[in-house]
Amino acid sequence: MQTEYERVEAELLQTMYERMSDAELDAAILELEREVDEVKAKGLKLDMARGKPSPQQVDISRPMLDLLTSDSDLFDEGIDCSNYGCFDGIPSARRLAGEFLDVPAEQTIVLGSSSLNIMQSVLIHYWEKGVPGYTPWYKLPHVKWLCPSPGYDRHFGLTQDLGIENIPVRMTDEGPDMDEVEYLCAKDDSIKGMFCVPKYSNPTGITYSDETVRRLAVMKAAPDFRIVWDNAYAVHDLFDETDHLMNIHDCAREVGNEDRILEVASTSKITFPGAGIAFFGSSAANVEEVARTLQVGLISANKLNQLMHARFLPDMDAVKAHMRKHAEFLRPRFAAVERKLTEGLGGTGCGRWSHPRGGYFVSFDGPKGSAKRVWQLCSDMGVTLTPAGATWPGGADPDDTNIRIAPTYPSVEELEAALDVLVLAVKLVSARIAREERAA
Amino acid sequence: MQTEYERVEAELLQTMYERMSDAELDAAILELEREVDEVKAKGLKLDMARGKPSPQQVDISRPMLDLLTSDSDLFDEGIDCSNYGCFDGIPSARRLAGEFLDVPAEQTIVLGSSSLNIMQSVLIHYWEKGVPGYTPWYKLPHVKWLCPSPGYDRHFGLTQDLGIENIPVRMTDEGPDMDEVEYLCAKDDSIKGMFCVPKYSNPTGITYSDETVRRLAVMKAAPDFRIVWDNAYAVHDLFDETDHLMNIHDCAREVGNEDRILEVASTSKITFPGAGIAFFGSSAANVEEVARTLQVGLISANKLNQLMHARFLPDMDAVKAHMRKHAEFLRPRFAAVERKLTEGLGGTGCGRWSHPRGGYFVSFDGPKGSAKRVWQLCSDMGVTLTPAGATWPGGADPDDTNIRIAPTYPSVEELEAALDVLVLAVKLVSARIAREERAA
Repeated sequence: MQTEYERVEAELLQTMYERMSDAELDAAILELEREVDEVKAKGLKLDMARGKPSPQQVDISRPMLDLLTSDSDLFDEGIDCSNYGCFDGIPSARRLAGEFLDVPAEQTIVLGSSSLNIMQSVLIHYWEKGVPGYTPWYKLPHVKWLCPSPGYDRHFGLTQDLGIENIPVRMTDEGPDMDEVEYLCAKDDSIKGMFCVPKYSNPTGITYSDETVRRLAVMKAAPDFRIVWDNAYAVHDLFDETDHLMNIHDCAREVGNEDRILEVASTSKITFPGAGIAFFGSSAANVEEVARTLQVGLISANKLNQLMHARFLPDMDAVKAHMRKHAEFLRPRFAAVERKLTEGLGGTGCGRWSHPRGGYFVSFDGPKGSAKRVWQLCSDMGVTLTPAGATWPGGADPDDTNIRIAPTYPSVEELEAALDVLVLAVKLVSARIAREERAA
Repeated sequence: MQTEYERVEAELLQTMYERMSDAELDAAILELEREVDEVKAKGLKLDMARGKPSPQQVDISRPMLDLLTSDSDLFDEGIDCSNYGCFDGIPSARRLAGEFLDVPAEQTIVLGSSSLNIMQSVLIHYWEKGVPGYTPWYKLPHVKWLCPSPGYDRHFGLTQDLGIENIPVRMTDEGPDMDEVEYLCAKDDSIKGMFCVPKYSNPTGITYSDETVRRLAVMKAAPDFRIVWDNAYAVHDLFDETDHLMNIHDCAREVGNEDRILEVASTSKITFPGAGIAFFGSSAANVEEVARTLQVGLISANKLNQLMHARFLPDMDAVKAHMRKHAEFLRPRFAAVERKLTEGLGGTGCGRWSHPRGGYFVSFDGPKGSAKRVWQLCSDMGVTLTPAGATWPGGADPDDTNIRIAPTYPSVEELEAALDVLVLAVKLVSARIAREERAA
């Protein structure tokens, strides 16, 4: 069976520039170079690099800042949020976490602002002491980790920092290539885990199919194999009709694999980036062990921030209503990406991109060997993109095709200008590649 | 020269019960047991276990909660505190951190709410990757750590958790016994560091003398030896006339040891426990390396909390004015401890205690072999103390004498009741010990 990416690559085999005569191609390149010079003269300074909400979008959470004042009741169901204690998180925040992650509230911990930080703490813990009953990873001659790619660069950084070997696995439209994942995990028990962004994946925007979720939950793997289930975009829908993600905890529990799943999420892209609250959810045994571990280095998290959040977002209905406001800012931006790329590159064979229904990114693939050059040319024209290769472990995109478009931060006007630059860069690089192929 | 502790032990050699005749002693024990029974009948439930401010004391920081509202300017000197970015901390918070730690602002990082968490992250980093240029600690056959004792149980937990051997070093009235520290560090380069609470030390309340600070900064030690300089009580003065702590960074820099010092502090006992902001300060090289390390697992800390704090406490004058308000709550509590212990145990030879001018604790030493029994007897009478032994690594107080009194949380009335119980427990245990010695 042809994978999604093989199909894409086949489509991309011929760009419009490859189909041109030599004279046409030279003329096209001259014209594109002239356009590039024109853009350069404008002195643009635009940023499509990181998944940040725009300032106007962030502002929709400002009413939360009015909820705690000097007169407020700072107790949450008997817990004094203004003093030490209650390491696991305050009751109302854990209840929200439970609804959010779709696990019982007792199987959650609510911590500081960063889910990345929770992931790192848990991975370091296993590296240092091992999954209970198994050898600490640092004592093993080799530890490997599966990295669905394109994926999230900061994930890959966590394992790389521990000296773990990151193994890329191709993403498909249904999630990671499960044939590959199952094959690798069954034969190699030095593979100790895997990163997943199961809903509106970073950067491809796809949501794992039920079959993918089920296979991940039940597949054969090392007994201390762990899935970091980073549900960063759990409620980050663009449309009323949302993608559905199957509950992996339920699937895993049915076959006794409930300890395999380490779910995290945060409100960074719900309330204030970096100043939200972060959730951990897993089996009862894992939650107990992780809490015991993290308590060595933390007396209690910022419970006033938890209280403010729990009062602003008391339940999932409140979360969803709030996310609909976010979507109003995001929809026109994602629409602009789709429109500009279609207008600029549709039918050229120079690129293919994802059409996400949520999340923060559009994944773009140009011709083989184009991504680094497109990134550089955009940079020369004043547009910052996520570095080419960043979506692959070690920055090593094997075909050098993938660029992550982060359309959320700029205004629609800035975004359109930046996309015009991207389109122009993709065309010129594609044309130059066509000429180089001819020369070779 | 007799050390402080040798002097103390000499003083404690004879309790009033040891000086009694057999008949007097038996009568005293009977009378004390009767008093204990009376107390038990009251069904007290009092807590002198942890260093928490009282609810009324915490309330003095409530006005801070009015500083950020939906209408607020959320920028700090050009930094948008409501979005990702600015990992090192916002400019005004770093400036405060610099003043607080007495290092240049560029040599600080302002992070989440917990200084314990920063210490853990840095220690794990060295354990995992080593101090730059040296072997990671996990690869060494043996790593040891000096723990001035009595000291802070959560410090000892950090190194114990990493499998590092904690070596107790006696505290004196001028800080850790520096003859011992220098002797150990000079002969054994598997000693990789040391915990210090240099001002109003936990629990003895003493402040390190200038000579102690200087000797720590310049002494011979392993090149990757590190001092965790936990300045938790830097501004936590009870009186207008405050203890002076010498700047250890300056001393260390003079001899090229500036990388040795890892200073931390937080506002947990200035604003809201667990919901403050935490500071790291060290050499420029360390700060750069620690920031690079921590960034692997954190995009940025809660900058809105930093902004709220920096507006509430814009400089050290504001901090000191705020701390004077705290002192008004603390002074009567420390005075109650001094009064009750003096009234109850003065001249009995059954106990000796510290007379701190700041911080959160009074350190109490009873007769040898008394602390665990005193703790248990207090518990039986409804008074919770920090577990006996907790102030020593591994919970192993070699003479079983030390009890940490945490007088800050209860009301003065509750505290007085709890101290009456402690006095009674110390007397009965001392009397029983005297009888057992006679029987032996």
